[in-house]
Amino acid sequence: MKIGVLGTGGVGQTIAARLADLGHDVMIGTRDPDQSRARTKPDWRGISFADWIAQHSHVQLGTFAETAAHGELLFNCTSGMISLDALALAGADNLADKVLIDVSNPLDYSSGALELSVCNTDSLGEQIQRAFPRLKVVKALNTMNASVMVNPALLPGEHAVFVAGDDTPAKATVTDFLRREFGWRQVIDLGDITGARAVEMLLPLWVRLMPALGTIHFNFAVAR
Amino acid sequence: MKIGVLGTGGVGQTIAARLADLGHDVMIGTRDPDQSRARTKPDWRGISFADWIAQHSHVQLGTFAETAAHGELLFNCTSGMISLDALALAGADNLADKVLIDVSNPLDYSSGALELSVCNTDSLGEQIQRAFPRLKVVKALNTMNASVMVNPALLPGEHAVFVAGDDTPAKATVTDFLRREFGWRQVIDLGDITGARAVEMLLPLWVRLMPALGTIHFNFAVAR
Repeated sequence: MKIGVLGTGGVGQTIAARLADLGHDVMIGTRDPDQSRARTKPDWRGISFADWIAQHSHVQLGTFAETAAHGELLFNCTSGMISLDALALAGADNLADKVLIDVSNPLDYSSGALELSVCNTDSLGEQIQRAFPRLKVVKALNTMNASVMVNPALLPGEHAVFVAGDDTPAKATVTDFLRREFGWRQVIDLGDITGARAVEMLLPLWVRLMPALGTIHFNFAVAR
Repeated sequence: MKIGVLGTGGVGQTIAARLADLGHDVMIGTRDPDQSRARTKPDWRGISFADWIAQHSHVQLGTFAETAAHGELLFNCTSGMISLDALALAGADNLADKVLIDVSNPLDYSSGALELSVCNTDSLGEQIQRAFPRLKVVKALNTMNASVMVNPALLPGEHAVFVAGDDTPAKATVTDFLRREFGWRQVIDLGDITGARAVEMLLPLWVRLMPALGTIHFNFAVAR
């Protein structure tokens, strides 16, 4: 399957590498591919994008527009504060009628502490859907570390990934994809795209749990 | 132990009844006890307050002030939109130097849809702490149905109650109380009272999970 992953940070790299390993035809998108290839400074995991893309020759690198045009299925893995800009660069025509899995979170650290740039009565998922009405936005995977997104079996027992979106067939496509490609067992449908509020508002708890649990390898589950 | 439960709704009733059953000296507080005793209209569970208090003669009924004065340990189970008013009626002197377990949520349905009246950069737990600086506020138990609060064994496996507060000994007292009286096994400390933001912001997800799961008997857990 042709897949476009928008965003070259840790989340985009992890999803792109995993899907390329599974045999998909993957392009990862950035604002300026030459500038990204020149990034030799290691990130917090100790690897630079220059090294990562050299080591992942089965992942193509393109602009946001080329990546959106390439993918039959798209992932938004850009930082939430620039997601709308990145999608504008991708181009409404390249996005039209495609399914976009929106993994982004509106995390704003500009005040020094974590704030959501939008929440409660709106969400980034809804903003994206309103800005690109022909795009089929499905909010998913934004509530866990990237290593868990692509490999839920890292953690014991049943734990959850939440999906929300206005387009029912798109949500079914995403649910099936998450199960088949990544091995998710518990996919919980929160309804229409306003459900993005609920999952984006989980991030303050996620950020507090990380030091409380002493790990980034955890996920939310539901006991019932 | 002398316990004061502020708020006569379903949450206050459930906590008060459970603690009285366990042998504690419990008073439940309301704005106007005579008016509360005269409430003969059944709530959504099918029981009126008049019937409930008649059936629970081991729970005393008092004003907010009497209840705050009575309790060595206090629970705020009032509706979040009126919590600050109710605590003002309880009186700063009656609250001073006591531990208050704040179970409330700032749920505002005035627009027709669920909104939090405060979130992201502040929380109801913090508002209460600021309004009553001598009170030791510990946010806890606000992320589950009342039946699960007092009986976590209703649900299988390990699932979580979160605590947050500025006073470390108060948080230790609450943690111990939750374990000993209600049987909680997993009590997760989210740090200071700003952690109240994280747990209050869980409510939009809670409200969406109820129809998705088809039950009110569920709770959040952490897989790791």
